[in-house]
Amino acid sequence: MAFDPKSLKFDDNGLIPAIAQDAESKDVLMMAWMNLQAIEKTLETGKVTYWSRSRQSFWVKGETSGHTQELVDFRYDCDSDCILVLINQVGPACHTNRRSCFYTSVKDGQETELMKPMS
Amino acid sequence: MAFDPKSLKFDDNGLIPAIAQDAESKDVLMMAWMNLQAIEKTLETGKVTYWSRSRQSFWVKGETSGHTQELVDFRYDCDSDCILVLINQVGPACHTNRRSCFYTSVKDGQETELMKPMS
Repeated sequence: MAFDPKSLKFDDNGLIPAIAQDAESKDVLMMAWMNLQAIEKTLETGKVTYWSRSRQSFWVKGETSGHTQELVDFRYDCDSDCILVLINQVGPACHTNRRSCFYTSVKDGQETELMKPMS
Repeated sequence: MAFDPKSLKFDDNGLIPAIAQDAESKDVLMMAWMNLQAIEKTLETGKVTYWSRSRQSFWVKGETSGHTQELVDFRYDCDSDCILVLINQVGPACHTNRRSCFYTSVKDGQETELMKPMS
């Protein structure tokens, strides 16, 4: 069946959450937001493209930092309201220079830092 | 450092997205929403608990279906606006009876079903 990105469910701001997972290690690297055009750009170019809510502009991941995300697989969920992209991540996905944005773990009420910034 | 769930960033509806990842296979199984109390319940009980936007009530995953999610690790991201829970999932995570909600893949404009409902 042909995929129509317009069939996805966007929120009141026209956005849908997109989870980026390392295609190789399967680590979850980050979550950001896409709008309709960001999805189209991602699928057309193979470069994962988000919508930056703070800058209100397209965000071709790694365009300035070099920490690009090459699309390996594009998936969406049963409710059509969340996207999962499997990617090849160059360098750190996180703006703190860590491989993943999910570097803080909580156990018994205490926070632990799971990884250090990449050098 | 002590973790204060109130330090997380909730949206205008008091919600924060939570990604559930299989602690063993590392498959991403679903994404749902938590509010402050759902987070507290999840951490206190070890049973992953969401906030159902459609029912406007707590949703202790698997409470009626038996398809529970036992918390293995609770993480949050660099912006404190997304949660990642690593879990032991009993049976299917998806209401369609599939292991993961992300069973549709898009390639060259065509959709592919990656997995069938569990029996």
